[in-house]
Amino acid sequence: MKVLVTGFEPFGGEKVNPALEAIKLLPKEINGAQVVVRELPTVFRKSLDVLFSEIEKENPDVVICVGQAGGRFAISVERVAINVDDARIPDNEGNQPIDQPIFPDGENAYFSTLPIKRIVEAIKKEKIPAEVSNTAGTYVCNHVMYGVLYYASKKKPNMKAGFIHVPYLFEQVVDKKNTPAMGLNEIVKALTVAIEQSIT
Amino acid sequence: MKVLVTGFEPFGGEKVNPALEAIKLLPKEINGAQVVVRELPTVFRKSLDVLFSEIEKENPDVVICVGQAGGRFAISVERVAINVDDARIPDNEGNQPIDQPIFPDGENAYFSTLPIKRIVEAIKKEKIPAEVSNTAGTYVCNHVMYGVLYYASKKKPNMKAGFIHVPYLFEQVVDKKNTPAMGLNEIVKALTVAIEQSIT
Amino acid sequence: MKVLVTGFEPFGGEKVNPALEAIKLLPKEINGAQVVVRELPTVFRKSLDVLFSEIEKENPDVVICVGQAGGRFAISVERVAINVDDARIPDNEGNQPIDQPIFPDGENAYFSTLPIKRIVEAIKKEKIPAEVSNTAGTYVCNHVMYGVLYYASKKKPNMKAGFIHVPYLFEQVVDKKNTPAMGLNEIVKALTVAIEQSIT
Amino acid sequence: MKVLVTGFEPFGGEKVNPALEAIKLLPKEINGAQVVVRELPTVFRKSLDVLFSEIEKENPDVVICVGQAGGRFAISVERVAINVDDARIPDNEGNQPIDQPIFPDGENAYFSTLPIKRIVEAIKKEKIPAEVSNTAGTYVCNHVMYGVLYYASKKKPNMKAGFIHVPYLFEQVVDKKNTPAMGLNEIVKALTVAIEQSIT
Repeated sequence: MKVLVTGFEPFGGEKVNPALEAIKLLPKEINGAQVVVRELPTVFRKSLDVLFSEIEKENPDVVICVGQAGGRFAISVERVAINVDDARIPDNEGNQPIDQPIFPDGENAYFSTLPIKRIVEAIKKEKIPAEVSNTAGTYVCNHVMYGVLYYASKKKPNMKAGFIHVPYLFEQVVDKKNTPAMGLNEIVKALTVAIEQSIT
Repeated sequence: MKVLVTGFEPFGGEKVNPALEAIKLLPKEINGAQVVVRELPTVFRKSLDVLFSEIEKENPDVVICVGQAGGRFAISVERVAINVDDARIPDNEGNQPIDQPIFPDGENAYFSTLPIKRIVEAIKKEKIPAEVSNTAGTYVCNHVMYGVLYYASKKKPNMKAGFIHVPYLFEQVVDKKNTPAMGLNEIVKALTVAIEQSIT
Repeated sequence: MKVLVTGFEPFGGEKVNPALEAIKLLPKEINGAQVVVRELPTVFRKSLDVLFSEIEKENPDVVICVGQAGGRFAISVERVAINVDDARIPDNEGNQPIDQPIFPDGENAYFSTLPIKRIVEAIKKEKIPAEVSNTAGTYVCNHVMYGVLYYASKKKPNMKAGFIHVPYLFEQVVDKKNTPAMGLNEIVKALTVAIEQSIT
Repeated sequence: MKVLVTGFEPFGGEKVNPALEAIKLLPKEINGAQVVVRELPTVFRKSLDVLFSEIEKENPDVVICVGQAGGRFAISVERVAINVDDARIPDNEGNQPIDQPIFPDGENAYFSTLPIKRIVEAIKKEKIPAEVSNTAGTYVCNHVMYGVLYYASKKKPNMKAGFIHVPYLFEQVVDKKNTPAMGLNEIVKALTVAIEQSIT
């Protein structure tokens, strides 16, 4: 069994991306499943080009994409991705699509095929705050979640896929007033648990 | 040199108190100073009885009292304690004083004699969120901070003293929606840094 | 031209519902369009039964459903409704569906057919905080938004429809700590502006 | 009976100050007491020069100073002012005192002599969120509250005085994400009630 886990490069003026820092620290194997990690550019379209070619190369059974959700208090396991790009800030190559469909022939939305409720319960059992989220936003995170589920629905119906948002790291909020954060160890632990649940 | 560090027993329905959990993990010696830790009851008056007898026994150079401030995002180094008990909830023995002076012959307020700005900067340098706070509330935390500074002003003018509030631990907020928290390792690190600065 | 505006009865232990209080104060006519208001039960299925029969009776050109979103700071114009009922608390008749599709033959999601960006801009021009929201939750509000858009897609493709969430009223948060709210006059003004934009 | 009510000019990049806007709308007489309103510069020292000369001219029985506390959710009736100026941003004339005592011969702190608990209860009875606050900060608001109580303690022991912080107006938060606010009518009503309670 193989799990592909992705994280984005930093964006929005941040020097690090907690998702990327965390996936680098994942073990190479979890409960017998091989864990492959991959950095994605925080760029509309290009992120999916990289992801799709990686899927074709690695042929994973499960894909878990991970992104930063600054301002959230808990590990957010996303339920659904919607067919729209609507960027409040430009991506890392200056693209800022407004109200554009991601794939014109795609569904209005795709639901995560990961066991989202089970993942949330398992993370909370480790005493780390977690919740199901009903929106992945309309930026590159939603773009990638929608894209991988669109791809799976068209080409790999047996591949499970979904998205997890993680809070800022403490080092990112030292100069941001009243902004929630987590330590890297909590985030790595939560992602490990999410992988365990996704391969069962 | 000797530093007395106190933490409260759990209160308000919580099963743990992050202050108490953290001080138990402090090293016995920091930069050559002996570190003595002591649990205080979350009870008006009795907390001060315990604290004052401990000060008489240990004769510390510095006293740092630590308490939980549920809902705060950062390590809060308190600037000032005010001469009033005004309890929103009963303490652990059922006392709930309303608008009572703590010591009728005390000042309206006492300022911390710890280097509060220097402590905040040093904690932030460790990439942990920290801030000066201008209120320790009007519950047992303020009671103890006021009490130790009153005591120092009357009996031990060379003893430095102050109070640090710490956020909830992650395990305390697993079922509290949108509530900030920290890991125990960040809190222990922050308190260690605070002690280092206080003995310099 | 006719606009049907709905609001829910109170739920979740609240004595009032700001949506219902606000729609009762709307003018009977706005810019030449007739405004019909209707209370909906906060009950899965029954809310849609009432709404669909009202649509059949009134044959409106535009349907705007309004609901309370306790904890939000701004008027939230919803972008999308998803095909799932997942209730954290029981509805007003004790139903608590978990992860159930609303209409098994419906799309995964439907996008609002109101001019959501234009509505937000017009409300902000009146100096009232407003934003596009990407989730209407998974409770009766999302249920009704999904239902009316499903209905429109199947039976009335020219009828525009959508959903607006409003914050608590100040009277609802007097005993809730640090909870955002609005006055009834701001909410009524915002809904009036939303109707103006929806009929243009 | 005469009540002097003050509000500050705008500061910190804001175009209005809710305190100033609100006091301009107060009735000239409340329950038989004359209400005199006065704008204060948001400037250390100068604010007190203006206030003290106004007190000498008007000889009021009660002084209520009102200021903006951006980010607070409720009308905050301040309990205490502390003897320190510590400015995070420069005042309107560029002064930025750091850790300076306001009056070296003053107490460490002065408690409000207004009936703060009674004011909070009366405002909440009007269905407007209100709370006792234990910190007026360390900027010009605390400076003025400390100054007026220092002045009263030295020269006019029978004059009651205190400070009330009010949230942003809605128009100030239209472009600030997730920031609480109030309408001008709620603030004016709350201040009217505060005056009623203060003259009883």
